Amino acid sequence: MKRYEALAADVAASIQSGTLKPGDKLPSVRQASSSRHVSPATVFQAYYLLEAKGLIRAKARSGYYVAQGVKTLPPEPETASRPDGEARPVEVSELVLGILESAMSRDVVPLGSAFPSPLLFPFARLGRATAVAAAKLDPWMTVEDLAPGSPALRQQIALRYLVDGAQVAPDHIVVTNGAMEALNLCLSAVCKPGDTVLVEAPCFYACLQALERLGLHAVEVATDPREGIDLDALETAITRHEPKACWVMTNFQNPLGCSMGAEKKKALVELVTRHRVPLIEDDVYGELYYGHRRPVPTKSFDTEGWVMHCSSFSKTLAPGYRVGWTSPGRFLREVTYQKLTTSLSTSIPAQLGLARYLERGSHERHFRELRLALAKNRDLYTEAIRQYFPGDTRVSRPAGGYFLWVELPRKVDALLLHRMAMTENMSIAPGPMFSASRDFTRCVRINHGHPLTTRVESALGKLGKLARKLAR
Amino acid sequence: MKRYEALAADVAASIQSGTLKPGDKLPSVRQASSSRHVSPATVFQAYYLLEAKGLIRAKARSGYYVAQGVKTLPPEPETASRPDGEARPVEVSELVLGILESAMSRDVVPLGSAFPSPLLFPFARLGRATAVAAAKLDPWMTVEDLAPGSPALRQQIALRYLVDGAQVAPDHIVVTNGAMEALNLCLSAVCKPGDTVLVEAPCFYACLQALERLGLHAVEVATDPREGIDLDALETAITRHEPKACWVMTNFQNPLGCSMGAEKKKALVELVTRHRVPLIEDDVYGELYYGHRRPVPTKSFDTEGWVMHCSSFSKTLAPGYRVGWTSPGRFLREVTYQKLTTSLSTSIPAQLGLARYLERGSHERHFRELRLALAKNRDLYTEAIRQYFPGDTRVSRPAGGYFLWVELPRKVDALLLHRMAMTENMSIAPGPMFSASRDFTRCVRINHGHPLTTRVESALGKLGKLARKLAR
Repeated sequence: MKRYEALAADVAASIQSGTLKPGDKLPSVRQASSSRHVSPATVFQAYYLLEAKGLIRAKARSGYYVAQGVKTLPPEPETASRPDGEARPVEVSELVLGILESAMSRDVVPLGSAFPSPLLFPFARLGRATAVAAAKLDPWMTVEDLAPGSPALRQQIALRYLVDGAQVAPDHIVVTNGAMEALNLCLSAVCKPGDTVLVEAPCFYACLQALERLGLHAVEVATDPREGIDLDALETAITRHEPKACWVMTNFQNPLGCSMGAEKKKALVELVTRHRVPLIEDDVYGELYYGHRRPVPTKSFDTEGWVMHCSSFSKTLAPGYRVGWTSPGRFLREVTYQKLTTSLSTSIPAQLGLARYLERGSHERHFRELRLALAKNRDLYTEAIRQYFPGDTRVSRPAGGYFLWVELPRKVDALLLHRMAMTENMSIAPGPMFSASRDFTRCVRINHGHPLTTRVESALGKLGKLARKLAR
Repeated sequence: MKRYEALAADVAASIQSGTLKPGDKLPSVRQASSSRHVSPATVFQAYYLLEAKGLIRAKARSGYYVAQGVKTLPPEPETASRPDGEARPVEVSELVLGILESAMSRDVVPLGSAFPSPLLFPFARLGRATAVAAAKLDPWMTVEDLAPGSPALRQQIALRYLVDGAQVAPDHIVVTNGAMEALNLCLSAVCKPGDTVLVEAPCFYACLQALERLGLHAVEVATDPREGIDLDALETAITRHEPKACWVMTNFQNPLGCSMGAEKKKALVELVTRHRVPLIEDDVYGELYYGHRRPVPTKSFDTEGWVMHCSSFSKTLAPGYRVGWTSPGRFLREVTYQKLTTSLSTSIPAQLGLARYLERGSHERHFRELRLALAKNRDLYTEAIRQYFPGDTRVSRPAGGYFLWVELPRKVDALLLHRMAMTENMSIAPGPMFSASRDFTRCVRINHGHPLTTRVESALGKLGKLARKLAR
């Protein structure tokens, strides 16, 4: 990014966040040049760019002003969660299942869905790769490539790790039936029923479901909606509860959308290594960044093998193929055994199809297109929410993934909003789904992985109306 | 089968089991005609047939005699197991994993393998069906057909149930990652850690691994090597331990090879229904019968929904595709939830490929060829064991599947035999793998799912020599 572009981006951010309001005067070219240590020509270039975008207007002999009618972005959620820090058994299954079941029909506008639009994925190309791979399948693979998975696919996954800055050898990877199985296997490998696991507040409901299913206790740890889990609170909880694992979503966290900075990730790895607590890293969205680079996984800082990194192709490339993986560090043997006794192996035609597709290299182009589509949707959905929802609604501004975390006015009950929305054939994911203590009662997660069609926009309009009613 | 064929088969069985020995005189035509209530012509036809097969010889003016040099079959194991009936936590993982790992290389003769030769399966045709299905995949399936599985495949599975005499609607079926996941989901659906499950003695080691993984206790129930689990002992154990499930392999039990008769299956279902104990029926080998009809699953007698029937295509049609299923009766909702939270869905291209293959109907021919190959192998392997193993070795005579259960002389330690065999690059499955109490110390399971090549025959020869050494 050039200097004038950086300056323009900063000013645009101030305008969109409402720091600079319509009619406000911008710093003069001389002021800006001096405070930013750039030449006046650079400031002129930046202001021309902003003018071209319609964000500011020049008034003759007076200077630059924020244009009237410029749309500001809604504010982001700012308050970090403050869970009570107690260990508790998890009981979310009925709540979560009820909500998921209600939202499964194609007739329901999928604002509460966990999946992006399936039309964003290259099924035709994947199908051709799978066809070739299935036809060439060596029968002996079905005996020899069981638990850890196809060597060809593990090779491709290892290459992706390399691109992302982590050194993971193919034989330190276990291919799984999606990330969900990977995460379950990791939990089973290091925990016994009755053990305690630290989780973010809020966290992905499937994490809570897994804890419940395995008879584990959850301790929710304070989490900032923009910075992620609080490392001090995490250390306190580790000392107090001696957990058998921490489960953290480091990139584009579900539901908050936040990512940790690289330094914080490094500190997190050092922390769990010092305390010898396995860190289960759920990194299924890392590939869906809108910026210039994929945010690194904590795995790239893991020298001692305490990080159990889990990811999948389900959200980025091949939904329904159900191919994920884990690189479980020092727990490789335990996880392999869990895989062997849980499902023996992942479907071999699906693994080989993906391996062949990745070998051909056309996934990079698909990833770029997918990221662009999701980034565009984020802006469109955010604008629709700003327009239709109650005035003091806060909306997260994620730099990747396809979820917005929406904090509604205090009076709004998200579970009630969900029930009301369902009567109008719209789903949402209410906040209490993401919490062992049923917190986040006024928050909802909105999926922006589907194009903003008139049907979706009208649904957001109706949803906003319901929220306004409840906010009164 | 015609009358003379039935008579000939009976006589042949008496000869092969050693009841009639070489040189023994057969009943005269008049005697046989009168005792079997058939015409003398029928007896003549039967005797001609036996003579043509070289099993008997006519002596002029004297009658028919068992031919010299006729090969007799080794005797079958006869003694039912007598486990102590105590509930105990299961600890088999290290033993089983060690044995499985040692046997994974293609250099090892796979007498201990759990899989038949992968060359027996129609991978080319399956690959073509998968290619077509993957190319046609409707993206929305990847969202809508999650937990319970592809409607097209469930339809095909429901049709197979109908053929097998059970009424199971497609929406009472959950598609899984192989039978192993099905069995695990069923266990998780009805048991909590610390609960007790009744199992056969011996039983398939994956059952013991699943119990161990889930923190369940096993009670082993007396089992007859030809008739299967003892229903009286089962009822006693149910009353004493109040188990949360019984896990039974009703057809071609692994490792014994035995199947229950239909009447006994009916009684078993009545028993578990009376006591309201879920019956997890592992029926992965039922399709591999050598006779005229598939033995029915207990599911066909299940009017109250207490049978959780589990099976898969992995042993019969599509190894490595990892597609199995369960029809869990009254526990459908619990199992569906387990599937949703464990692995979400089974690979969709694999499901669609199988559905398409089955729709085309060419599987019946494949099944016939597979059964013929396995039946032939059973005879060849049995004969090789008779020839090479110690004289008082007993060998099961399964009517389906691909396992022989071999009971060696008392002095033989199967675990030691396994270790000795491994030094000569042959695997076996020693008896203690199949027992929570590490019983069956002188038994081994031999896989006859691979053609009896010279390499395999030579391995059986070496194995027999080792067994003779240990038996001394």
